[in-house]
Amino acid sequence: MGALRARRLEELPVEACLELLERSYLGRIGFVRDGVPQVFPVNYRLHEGAIVFRTDRGGFLDAVHLTHVAFEVDDADLETHTGWSVIVQGKAEEVWEPDELDRMRELPLRPWAPGDRDHYVRILPRTITGRRLS
Amino acid sequence: MGALRARRLEELPVEACLELLERSYLGRIGFVRDGVPQVFPVNYRLHEGAIVFRTDRGGFLDAVHLTHVAFEVDDADLETHTGWSVIVQGKAEEVWEPDELDRMRELPLRPWAPGDRDHYVRILPRTITGRRLS
Repeated sequence: MGALRARRLEELPVEACLELLERSYLGRIGFVRDGVPQVFPVNYRLHEGAIVFRTDRGGFLDAVHLTHVAFEVDDADLETHTGWSVIVQGKAEEVWEPDELDRMRELPLRPWAPGDRDHYVRILPRTITGRRLS
Repeated sequence: MGALRARRLEELPVEACLELLERSYLGRIGFVRDGVPQVFPVNYRLHEGAIVFRTDRGGFLDAVHLTHVAFEVDDADLETHTGWSVIVQGKAEEVWEPDELDRMRELPLRPWAPGDRDHYVRILPRTITGRRLS
């Protein structure tokens, strides 16, 4: 228990969370479909303060569009038992504005899964929280 | 788009999913609290076919106990754009049986965050699905 007690959990300021979100590319989106919680991995980019990812037309897009979702990014090291996590809460919405879509298409953003994933979704953060374990 | 189209997404059989769950230690649990989707990272172990993790008494435990949750584990490589993900759906429940708790306390299972996290929760899988991107 000594080692466990020595570890320190630090709440991260929003700026540090944004930096971690900027540096990462794989996150997980939590949402509800037909009353059942779901967690899906997505490749994403932080773009103008929003989480942006690509998807195809389908049940996933329908389930998240205009709903409140959770978004999580983390990193951990088993050996040293250090790590961090950032959690975003906010509304997801499909992006329709042509100018905005043009800018998003220039992002280095590959979808997690192959296929024509031409729909862009952004999560507008309402809260951003993060923790670092050192 | 050539590289994108060349990639292959393979559905994994349950046995392969269980093997990946066995080898990993950090997952994310998706649940609903006060109507809002949540995603939290947890250190876990696969134990007798169930996902087991530790937590403290609190809102998180209350929110997941006896509810249906999602649990996700993944790994990805940005350079090669390969990776996999496994998603478990099932009911979470706090473990009360003394014999069962004794066995769980012997697991090499450290909670993600420090503190007295003496409550053990298991997720009994109803479905296990996985995908590999190669």
